[in-house]
This record gives sequence, structure tokens and C-alpha cells, in this order.
Amino acid sequence: MIILMAGESTTEHVAAVAAQVEQDGYTSHVWSGQRTIVAVVGHSATPLTPAVYEQMSGVEKVTPTRVPYTLASRQFHTETTQFPLNGCKIGADKVLVIAGPCSVEGREQIIETACAVKEAGATALRGGAFKPRTSPYSFQGHGERGLQWLAEAREVTGLPVVTEVMDPHLVDMVGQYADVLQVGARNMQNFTLLNAVGLSRKPVLLKRGMSSTVEDLLMAAEYVLAGGNHQVMLCERGIRTFETATRNTFDLNAIPVLKQLTHLPVIADPSHAVGKSEYVEPVARAAVAAGADGLIVEVHLDPPNAMSDGRQSLTAAQFTAMMQAVRRVAAAVDRSA
Amino acid sequence: MIILMAGESTTEHVAAVAAQVEQDGYTSHVWSGQRTIVAVVGHSATPLTPAVYEQMSGVEKVTPTRVPYTLASRQFHTETTQFPLNGCKIGADKVLVIAGPCSVEGREQIIETACAVKEAGATALRGGAFKPRTSPYSFQGHGERGLQWLAEAREVTGLPVVTEVMDPHLVDMVGQYADVLQVGARNMQNFTLLNAVGLSRKPVLLKRGMSSTVEDLLMAAEYVLAGGNHQVMLCERGIRTFETATRNTFDLNAIPVLKQLTHLPVIADPSHAVGKSEYVEPVARAAVAAGADGLIVEVHLDPPNAMSDGRQSLTAAQFTAMMQAVRRVAAAVDRSA
Amino acid sequence: MIILMAGESTTEHVAAVAAQVEQDGYTSHVWSGQRTIVAVVGHSATPLTPAVYEQMSGVEKVTPTRVPYTLASRQFHTETTQFPLNGCKIGADKVLVIAGPCSVEGREQIIETACAVKEAGATALRGGAFKPRTSPYSFQGHGERGLQWLAEAREVTGLPVVTEVMDPHLVDMVGQYADVLQVGARNMQNFTLLNAVGLSRKPVLLKRGMSSTVEDLLMAAEYVLAGGNHQVMLCERGIRTFETATRNTFDLNAIPVLKQLTHLPVIADPSHAVGKSEYVEPVARAAVAAGADGLIVEVHLDPPNAMSDGRQSLTAAQFTAMMQAVRRVAAAVDRSA
Amino acid sequence: MIILMAGESTTEHVAAVAAQVEQDGYTSHVWSGQRTIVAVVGHSATPLTPAVYEQMSGVEKVTPTRVPYTLASRQFHTETTQFPLNGCKIGADKVLVIAGPCSVEGREQIIETACAVKEAGATALRGGAFKPRTSPYSFQGHGERGLQWLAEAREVTGLPVVTEVMDPHLVDMVGQYADVLQVGARNMQNFTLLNAVGLSRKPVLLKRGMSSTVEDLLMAAEYVLAGGNHQVMLCERGIRTFETATRNTFDLNAIPVLKQLTHLPVIADPSHAVGKSEYVEPVARAAVAAGADGLIVEVHLDPPNAMSDGRQSLTAAQFTAMMQAVRRVAAAVDRSA
Repeated sequence: MIILMAGESTTEHVAAVAAQVEQDGYTSHVWSGQRTIVAVVGHSATPLTPAVYEQMSGVEKVTPTRVPYTLASRQFHTETTQFPLNGCKIGADKVLVIAGPCSVEGREQIIETACAVKEAGATALRGGAFKPRTSPYSFQGHGERGLQWLAEAREVTGLPVVTEVMDPHLVDMVGQYADVLQVGARNMQNFTLLNAVGLSRKPVLLKRGMSSTVEDLLMAAEYVLAGGNHQVMLCERGIRTFETATRNTFDLNAIPVLKQLTHLPVIADPSHAVGKSEYVEPVARAAVAAGADGLIVEVHLDPPNAMSDGRQSLTAAQFTAMMQAVRRVAAAVDRSA
Repeated sequence: MIILMAGESTTEHVAAVAAQVEQDGYTSHVWSGQRTIVAVVGHSATPLTPAVYEQMSGVEKVTPTRVPYTLASRQFHTETTQFPLNGCKIGADKVLVIAGPCSVEGREQIIETACAVKEAGATALRGGAFKPRTSPYSFQGHGERGLQWLAEAREVTGLPVVTEVMDPHLVDMVGQYADVLQVGARNMQNFTLLNAVGLSRKPVLLKRGMSSTVEDLLMAAEYVLAGGNHQVMLCERGIRTFETATRNTFDLNAIPVLKQLTHLPVIADPSHAVGKSEYVEPVARAAVAAGADGLIVEVHLDPPNAMSDGRQSLTAAQFTAMMQAVRRVAAAVDRSA
Repeated sequence: MIILMAGESTTEHVAAVAAQVEQDGYTSHVWSGQRTIVAVVGHSATPLTPAVYEQMSGVEKVTPTRVPYTLASRQFHTETTQFPLNGCKIGADKVLVIAGPCSVEGREQIIETACAVKEAGATALRGGAFKPRTSPYSFQGHGERGLQWLAEAREVTGLPVVTEVMDPHLVDMVGQYADVLQVGARNMQNFTLLNAVGLSRKPVLLKRGMSSTVEDLLMAAEYVLAGGNHQVMLCERGIRTFETATRNTFDLNAIPVLKQLTHLPVIADPSHAVGKSEYVEPVARAAVAAGADGLIVEVHLDPPNAMSDGRQSLTAAQFTAMMQAVRRVAAAVDRSA
Repeated sequence: MIILMAGESTTEHVAAVAAQVEQDGYTSHVWSGQRTIVAVVGHSATPLTPAVYEQMSGVEKVTPTRVPYTLASRQFHTETTQFPLNGCKIGADKVLVIAGPCSVEGREQIIETACAVKEAGATALRGGAFKPRTSPYSFQGHGERGLQWLAEAREVTGLPVVTEVMDPHLVDMVGQYADVLQVGARNMQNFTLLNAVGLSRKPVLLKRGMSSTVEDLLMAAEYVLAGGNHQVMLCERGIRTFETATRNTFDLNAIPVLKQLTHLPVIADPSHAVGKSEYVEPVARAAVAAGADGLIVEVHLDPPNAMSDGRQSLTAAQFTAMMQAVRRVAAAVDRSA
């Protein structure tokens, strides 16, 4: 249930509403924008009676939620959520471009790559220090040392750092180095991890699971939001289908669908969506044309020798070309990049 | 196997090559562009020996095909195939936009819609006279009468007509009215029908089956090409996945993949790909950004009362807005629309 | 809408009901078993008013259909449909086993294989004379000559012949040789073909499309039933998913689901469902354990040299072993094989 | 690489081989059955040279692995792995039947259900104390209190307890109560959790992710095995496809495929695979007919009032009937239940 407070409502009015919610056995989340909105979530033996709330002072309108998520819905928050990230603003006109290698392979590699993607116009740096690998025998990442190198690369370039966290008990540690905590596709329904990042105050990049529906993704975001962390970006990175020509099938439809259903910024990952570097640029152009608020792209200075995902990594030159192409498309939909 | 003839080769050289192919038990297809190319297809007890052909007069190079299709491959024909259609050129810089109702519902309906989509900038008219419907009790189309109305609409507007043919024995009849024969998604592997349209000399719009891979689609095109009909367009219209938020999942990846693998023009159908009118425009923009050579879009003057597919049909005003948005994106990728 | 006639109703009562249906603009299908049932199908501007029919003489009960198919539903016909086939009865306790090669490759091959599968206990012979092949260059079947050889094999063994028809205009010709007309997976929504076999009086084996839902399959069957052909068997043969370990994914669930939703007999095709001969027997056992009324299995006397589908074909010895295993499982679910 | 030691090899021979493996930069896993086998896994700059190992004393044969998993492969361990569980033996002739509610709802509920399923013939008890729920607002389980009730139910009935662990840091705590640690489908690629249960010495029931291939499942098992925990059961529980008639699509094919590729016991979960109680029994029969080593089935004494998964839960009477049916099918494939 969503309660819209009147323009002239006071903090006392909001407090009284929250008290009533608690008395009914539910939890309230207050969102203060132009107008204050109170979301009522949870379950209780007491059924929610809209009329009880409608007659309270300072309440303008009470509406039931039509979807199983509340805090993630456009109904709750009609404007696209924006939040700052090292000088740029996520969810605003400028398309966020997160670029960097799949894995942090070494100190020099990540610093050099950071400089290269910054030069081409990237607004954030990606790089994995903890790598979810299908095989237990594959390179699993450099761990905390990798995070330190990422922090150094940020110091050199000013680019904020996006990196994955896999262990709920390492959220704080990773958060000491990272500007954005990435939850990977394989962990999208790792509810223990979602609860842990929900308690963090770092922005979260939540990747869609490879067989998760759009609604599953929004429910996963609801876990993070319900934990009190409101800075969540959603990422479409391709889903699993019968098609074998590409690594995954990029669900382009999900971009306008998400933009309609949720106020959270939507990021596209063309690299994992296609799995082959030659297709990354056209998919990146398409994602921006469809309304994505950002891109996350794998770039490696020497793809054939990458420790992971070399086949889908752009070289610095290819990334520069992609940025030029993306900028033109962004302008055609009244955005910049 | 693909045989590239030398620049100075003569028709006698080509004839000799074709004779050798026949003697070996295979079939040859000759393609004359800047240079003449001979594709060797089929099966025979005699294995193909490249060396035999390499030493023939007028032969420059012999290469085995790396894919199971030959005539449809970029290896055979490196330039994108172009063919004329009532003044416009398919496969050229200008993005073809085919628009119109799902079903031809009546004479006035199709003429009025044709005028509306032409005014908005469409370059061809679509409309179904023979409708493949899931239920035997649903409206199955007006048949030949519908085709006559389509022809009238062409007379009024000058727009070429794209319409579906379902029965291999009606290919000639439909071809008397239509400018482009559409093979629907459910018939993509109806090989009897593919053989029939392969014998026609009308351009064919071949829609990808909802669970067909890109390779399946190219093999289906190979049937039409092997029949001698070289004017084939391929259409991505969404595939079947687990996602239920949209009618199908638009496989955006397929656009760059097809552009790489084949010389045939690639068309996108955002209407069937999403199934809801509010998502059609962003998907259309994305398809053009990714490199599609054309769009096919459902437009109805009164969607709530459409006899089929109303939920995904644009109104005339929505289509006009879509055209404006698509034109801007087309310009950003050095095309027009 | 389904009208159950009273036990004492007369043919005049039924005729009056049918006349009322026609007057309302619908079509009636009469099914006479222990009790007579009238199905009302189609569309009309006049809404159907159950009360009008309930008060007619001889009518016991009127119920609206809850599903988009009527003639195929268990609501219309509560007992499993049975029909005779050369001495055996489809849909009865004995599990029908259709066996034979993918393609009819020659006269001797099909006669020898027929003898071998008969000896092992098969109750019908399969073999393709018209082959739907992904590539236009693959062997497309021996056509009518293949049908003649199949008829010879029937003469020698007494086994009824199941064979595919692809062209709606060849239904009568194929029906002159075949005992059962097979509609292949790729043609499950070839409505022109469904209409054609609906007008035939030969039993039909309708294979599920590789991306068709159970409901799509029942709607396809409804086309055949609406044409007046009531002898339809449904065949689960595997669907397309992301899994690549097997050719398709056998949808075992579909067997109990179909047995609940429809009165039509359900056949399983373990050969296409798995694509590798070593997995055919366990899947065949499972299908019978789950309640399938029959099996269709590919058997070849020399799989490595088969002209098609050799990888999934059982040898005669493997088929004999499979029959023994299937018989034991059939007995465990109170059936025979 | 897999090294088969000779029958007369000594522990010194094995130690020398292990030392060489370590020197080459790899890890060795020793498996002692009738014969001792050394698996060599991991990555190193030094390439593995079979000849080096072949000439060592006590070595009989060296074979490279043909699949990306080694410890999970049938190549490494040709006999099906068996391990004891409270008196019964997993992987042996008797089909293991794990039954119980989705969630542990209360002390009496779980004890009463345990008694009921034991009476019907179950060999282990399931019940969730930590529940992975799509919504953050749904019941998340009773946690450690639920585990205590499960332990009480074991005391009363003697049935070993199977329960899910979601948090890698709670593996030890859950292991103090549970006999088998379940890793849920959503956590199949939660590598942090897989590493944690790999360090435990409790048997693990690893459920297949809803969009994981059979190979993905085996790679996930490899994580647990590589951690030193050899008691792993694999569970097919349905995959995600386009079909909506059932909750998931039971991949029956996976049973014979897994039995061929791996030595680990294979369990089937018909409840999650279909999602509707009326289809559970036929799917359970089919799984056993196809060769499953066990079943895990949801049973609730009052399904309409279950706190989760009521729609797919069997009543005690339905479970008793299922057990009788399953016993007959088990006997038909030379097993018991």
C-alpha cells in the first residue's frame, strides 16, 4: 500500500502514519521527494484498511500496490531515481559508461586500462577482484589485493570503481575500496547477499540472473531497498535461451519494460549479452537508443591474453570507436554520453 | 564450395566450371556482381576436389564453405544484397518501413490506413488476407478479397504491398496482388512452402520461427535461394523464452549476427517482438541503431477494435511519432528513414 | 459451450439443439458415446445464452468451456478416445509401439526393418517418404516410391504404416498408402495442412512443435477435430531449451498434463527427445511410467550408415531390449506393451 | 588428468605421484576404491606431461580428462558413489525417498509430518528452516529454532534430516542439526557457499539451477568435491522454459545423461518440477523408471494452509499412494523403494 502525503503535511503527520503502520503489524518506508510518500510493506494478521489511513491528517491519497514489489515500483516513486557518483549523476541525462577488464589481473594492467577508458570517455571503472568462475580450477581473482589496485587506479584517474562482491561477510571490506557494489547474475537470488548489501550505504549494481524474469529482478531489488539501501541500479546482461550464435540473448525489451515499471536506473551490459567483441558496439548503440541509463563494457588492452572473457573484450581502440558511436545515438534520443 | 572467377573470365569459363560441377553430381548457382561467383551445392558420391577447379581457366580462387548454407552466406556474396521495390531500394541506406494493420479488415480500413502510414513516412504497406490463427474459430482473414483491397490501397498510395502466403498452391495467386510474399514465423520450416516461394520471382520476407536459431533461419533462406529466388529479406520478430512480461523476446543480437553472416537484408518486427504498443517505439529505435535495414510495424486506426493484435498496434499518431524518433536514430548511424 | 443431452433424449432433440446453434450463428459438433454431447464452437455476433438451451427438450446440462479448445477437451469427452488400427486399439490398455527408420531408404531396408521390429513386438511401422530437412541439399525422401515400399512392408508384416505428410495437396495421395498420417513438429502450426488432414478420415499423429506450449498443441488438434476428423493422437517429442547435452528436452510433465486436459491418446517420441541412442530406453521407460498411451521409436538395422538420424536410432537388438524393459514398466502401471 | 595406480601399488608410490603433481604446480585428489586413482586438477604454467607419470613406479595408466570436471566424472570413478545415511545407503539399489514439508512451520507440524511420511515409507525427512523466498516480505523460515524441531523429529522417527543452508557462514551451525546439507537451485552457482559446504564433511544435496546445464551442475559439484567433500548428491528439479502449464519443466533426459557422465547419485524432485500436486506421482514414477537413485517430495498434512508451496504438496494419503506406485515401478527396474 502506498500513502501519498499532502503538500502541507508535517513530520508529525508522517510520524503518526508510521505509528499506525507499526500498530497494524507492517513496516513503513518513507521517501521524501517533492512530496512525501509512505510505502507500507510486509505481512500481518491485521488486514490493511485504506480507509483508516485516508482519514488521517496530512494524508492525501492511499493506493494499493498492483505489483508484488512496492519500493521498486514507479507507483511509489514516479521520477527516475538519481544518485551521485564521483561527480557524475546516475539516472540523469548523461549515460553512465562503466568500462574496464573482466578481472583485475595486476596493478599496472588496471591502472593502464583505467587511463585508457577514461581517455575514451568512460565515467566509471569496472574490474573483478573476486571472480565467480564456473570451474573451481579457474583463476578466482586477486581478492583484496585486487581491490587495492582498483583504488589506486581511481586515485590516478578519478574514475569511481565498480566491483563485484560475492560473500555477504565481505560486503564491508569490499565497500571500503569500491564506489559501487556489484551483485553478479549468478547471485541475483542469493538472498543472504542481497540482505547484506541492503544494509550497506554504497550504491549497488544488481545484474539480472540469466534465467530471471523482469519481475524476479525487481523482487531482488526490493530486498536491497527493503534493507534501507535506496541506491540500486538494475543491469540487463542477457538471458539464457536456445540460441547458440551468441553467449546469451540480450533482452532488449527489458529496457523499456523496466523503465516503465521501476524508478531505478537501468544499465545494459552488451559484453556478456553477446560474448563476442565484434557485436558489442551495435548492441551498445541499441541499448542507448532504447533508453538505457548506462552501459557496462569489458575492455582489455590485450584481449587474446586476458585471464577471463577475452573473447568479448574490446581493445582500447574499439572502445574509443564505440564511445563515438554511442555518443551520436545518445544525442538522437536527447541524451549525452 | 565457392568458386571466385577471375576478373577477365568469360562466360565460356563459367560454363565450363558449371559443366564440371554437374559432372561431379552437384548443382551450381552463378552470381554475377563485380566479379562472378559460382556456388557449388548439394550432395554427391563424388567428393569435391578443389584442385580440379583451381586449375580451370578463368578460376581465381576456390574456398570451401565453413557454414552449412552457401548461397545465403557473406562468403558467397560480400556486399549486402539490394533489390528495388516500387521506387525504393531494399538493403540500401534508407531504412525500409513496412506498416499497416495485422489483418485486412475491410476495403475502407486498408485504404485509410495505407494513406495514414504513407503520410507518416512508411515505404510499404502490410496487411494480412490469409491469417495463421492459433484457434480454428478465430477470424482467418478475407482471403482473395482482402488481396484485392490491398491492391486498391497500393493504387491509391503507391505503397508496395507485403502480405502473407500460407498455402504453397496459392503462391502464384497471392503473387498476382502482392509485391512481397511474406512467409510467417510458424511456416519458417514449412519446406513445401519455401520451395514454392523459391520458384516465384517475387521478393520474399522470411520471418524467423519463434524457436529457430539464426542458423535455422539462414538454412530456410537457403531453400528459397536454392529455388532461384534471390530476393529474400530476413525478419527478426522475437523468440520464445521464459520471460512473460512481453509477448516474445526480441533477439537484438540477431541483427549484428545476421549482418555479419549473410548478405541478405535484415528487417525487424518490433510489434510481434514485444506485443504491447507502448514498447514498440523504443524497440524500433534500437533495431535501427543496431543496423537493421528495415522495420515492419503494426498500425491500426482503432486498436481497441482491431480484429487481431490490437494490443500491439500503434495508432496513426503513435506511428508518426515513432517515425520521427526512428529518423533521428537512423541519422546517427548514417542512414535515413 | 458444451451441451449434455439427457439419457432419454432422441435424435429429434439433438436436431433441434443443432438448429438453434445454427440460428445463433455457431457450429455444432455432436459426439455420441454412452450419452450424446453437443459442442458449440465458433464466433457470432449473437452471444450464447445457456438458459435458452437448458430449457430445450432432451437437454440435461449446459456448461461453458473453461479452455480455448472445446472438441479436444476432457470436458467434452471424459473418456480417453480409442480407435482401432489394424487389429490393435489406440488409447486402450496396450501401449502402442510404432517403430522403424527415420527415412525409408529402399525397398529391402524397410521390409527387413519392419520384420525386425515386428519380431521385437512393435505394433506399427514408421518410416519417412517425405522428409522435412533443415538443408535443401539433404536427402528429402523417396516420395511416392517410398510410400509404395511402406505398403509392401505392411503386406509382409501386417503392421499398419505411420508416415509424414508435408504438403496439404498430397494428403489424399499419402492417405492411399498410410494408415496414420503424421504431421511433423515443424508443421504443427501449418494451419493449411491441419485443415487438410482434418478433412481426411485417416487417423492423425500430431507432433508437438519444438517451441509450442501444451495449449498450442491442443489448439492445433482442435483444427483437425473441427474439420471432422476425430482420430487424433498427440505426440510429445521434446522441446527446445538452453540445454545442449541432448538434442531436445523431453517434456515429461506434458504427459500427465495432457492426460488431464484432453481425451486424445498421448504418444511419446524418446528418439527425437534425446537424440542419442543410449538414452532412448530410459526415456521410453519413463514415458510409459508417466502414463503415455504409446511410443514412436527410430530403429535402423545399421545406424552408422543411416541416411538421417543415425545417432538416435536403435539397432534391432537395442530395440528388442527396450521392448522387454518397457513391458516390465507397463505391467507396473497396469498396462501391457 | 587421471592416474590409475596398479593393483600392487603402495602408499609410497601414491605419495611420490602426489609429490610430482605438486612440483608441477597442480593439486592431486586421491580416491581409494578397489584400485587407487589420483586425479590431477588445477592450472599451472608447467604443462602436464603424461609420459612423466606413466614411467613412475606403481602407475598403470594415465588418461587426460575429456570433460571440464574431473572428480565428478565417471572417468575418475567408474562405480556409482554410495554413502551411508542413518542406516540406509544412498546410491544403492534401494531408492532413497526424502519427504516432508517445504517449510518447518512449527514443532508439532514437523514431528507429525515426519511420523506420517515414515509410516508411508520415506527414508529421510526434508523441511526448510532457512527459506529462499522471492519476496523480502514472505515468511523466511524459523531459522535455528526450525532446525531444533527437525532434530526432534529425527529423534522421534529415526529419519535423517535434509535441510537447506543459504549462508556460507552458517554451514557449521546447520550441520550440527542436519544429516544432509541442501544447496538450493538459486544458490547452485553461489561459489562462496559451494566452497563452504566443500569444507564440511556432511553429505550435500546439490539442486540444479533453473537455467543451469547438466555441465554447469557437474562443475558446481566439482567445487564441493575439490573442497574435499565427496558425499554429493545431484538433484534435477525442473528447468525454466517457455511452457507455462507447469511451474518448471522436469528435464527427464538429465537422469540418464547424469548417470552416464558422473558417479554421483542422482535424485529427482517432482514437486518443484511440476508445481501441482496432481502431477507429482506420475513424474515420480517416471524418474524412478529412468534410473533416479532417489526422490525428494513435498508433503504437507494440510496443503491449503501451508505457509509455502501448498499447491504442489501431497497430503499424507497421496504420498502413501505415491509410494505404492513408485515401489511397483522400482521393482520393474530391479530396484526397491
